[in-house]
Amino acid sequence: MRVGFIGLGIMGRPMARNLLKAGYELWVNSRSRGPVDELAACGARAASREELAAACEVIFTMLPNGPQVREVLLGPDGLAARMRPGQVFIDMSSISPAVSREIAAALAEKGVEMLDAPVSGGEPKAIDGTLSFMVGGRQAVFDRCRPLLLAMGSSAARCGEVGAGNTVKLANQVIVAANIAALAEGLLLAKRAGADPAAVLEAIRGGLAGSAVLDAKGPMMVENRTDPGFKIDLHIKDLQNALDTAHQCGAPLPLAASVMEMLQVLHARGLGGCDHSALAKYYENLANDTIFQKNKE
Amino acid sequence: MRVGFIGLGIMGRPMARNLLKAGYELWVNSRSRGPVDELAACGARAASREELAAACEVIFTMLPNGPQVREVLLGPDGLAARMRPGQVFIDMSSISPAVSREIAAALAEKGVEMLDAPVSGGEPKAIDGTLSFMVGGRQAVFDRCRPLLLAMGSSAARCGEVGAGNTVKLANQVIVAANIAALAEGLLLAKRAGADPAAVLEAIRGGLAGSAVLDAKGPMMVENRTDPGFKIDLHIKDLQNALDTAHQCGAPLPLAASVMEMLQVLHARGLGGCDHSALAKYYENLANDTIFQKNKE
Repeated sequence: MRVGFIGLGIMGRPMARNLLKAGYELWVNSRSRGPVDELAACGARAASREELAAACEVIFTMLPNGPQVREVLLGPDGLAARMRPGQVFIDMSSISPAVSREIAAALAEKGVEMLDAPVSGGEPKAIDGTLSFMVGGRQAVFDRCRPLLLAMGSSAARCGEVGAGNTVKLANQVIVAANIAALAEGLLLAKRAGADPAAVLEAIRGGLAGSAVLDAKGPMMVENRTDPGFKIDLHIKDLQNALDTAHQCGAPLPLAASVMEMLQVLHARGLGGCDHSALAKYYENLANDTIFQKNKE
Repeated sequence: MRVGFIGLGIMGRPMARNLLKAGYELWVNSRSRGPVDELAACGARAASREELAAACEVIFTMLPNGPQVREVLLGPDGLAARMRPGQVFIDMSSISPAVSREIAAALAEKGVEMLDAPVSGGEPKAIDGTLSFMVGGRQAVFDRCRPLLLAMGSSAARCGEVGAGNTVKLANQVIVAANIAALAEGLLLAKRAGADPAAVLEAIRGGLAGSAVLDAKGPMMVENRTDPGFKIDLHIKDLQNALDTAHQCGAPLPLAASVMEMLQVLHARGLGGCDHSALAKYYENLANDTIFQKNKE
């Protein structure tokens, strides 16, 4: 099967490589030349968007956000204008579900099927081919494309019609953001009240406060490490899409909105490239004694 | 070893029974007659506070909150006045760490040692003897009393000096409260945006959004069950102690304060006896269409 892949960034590059390894004929396209050459050296063919649209049975995109996906599909040289019935478009970017549905509607007019299939798991899981896909789209299309997804990931769950993949991804990001802030908040309380944060993690991880966030981010907070992981700027993007989506459908997100403000403060102070566990620094800073000392002098 | 136990409530009753099973001589005291008779039938001896203070090497309390513990220890007929050097007082109630330290200071004047040892895990784990203890107090006292705790629980972690057990418990409750609200918030977003909540849980539970809260409370939210579990009114008590403690030590708890307001609304509407996962109802109600429909009419 001939497969197209647009967007060879930090995630897209290893994902495309795993499609090659699985034996698919792969045509690739990306903004910068380096990754394209790298994939070509592994057996992929560098191609224009027009060539992809004309020749590939399935076309994947892995792009930063909704506007980029919309441009690649619906822009001046967009794929949508050239694709034909029987082809499938699979967007693995994390974008707003409204944009997924907008693109799916445009493609449906051409008889082109679409799945939205954002992933969870970062670069290491992209390299290992152990990403988790959250998928929206028709069951039959999902069933047909499942083997392709499983060449890049260890699981693929269909959550509903087109847009449902990104909806679930946004819910995931809301929960992760608030769980990280909750952990930072609990650890700061424990620390200020005189307990040892490392002992706290150990004491509570087996109970109802236990979580993947506690296991992955707790030690980072205790050891004051902020190497990403998942960058604050990316989580800001996802929370903005979550808030936009919530505003459209009338869902209240008070915790996500609070954590968004915390992340924006960290971004403004130059920490946008840090892991999202740097939320602990927002809390530490709130309880920082320096300014209070100055006011008492 | 002769052990005293004060407070035979829902948790205290099975915990005392496990001490008996482990072979300790047990003297019990409680406000209501029923549980005392029940324990006496199992081999415990009903005794007054005065008798306990005079005769028991180690005395446990398992009471609703700080004021009750303070009254039993420092009130008119309080234990503190009658206890002697060498005896140990172990409070397993979930209370404010400041109260733990106040009582420990009063006991220290009499040469009486103290541990604060609140538990996590509800009635089922109290019955099974698989509670987790978070303990504050001197290492030597902890080492000596550990076998007693392990007669009621499967783990006991020392987290620092007296007060540290309750500090860790409060951090635990802050994290749990915010994780539950985060889950409710994420599920409501997914639902309003058209995804199936049960599919959402399944899709995200293996990733960074996975947690003990998601596994335990997610299905309850999806199935609209609110049987406790852990009651909203108890979580309100714990968050109040967390907020009081935070105010004393200057730790900011923005998420805990927000979730406290949600729980207070549920309490005021008569849901205080529901499981804390009923936070999902707070969110559902925020997004309820009825009042908006009325305003449009």
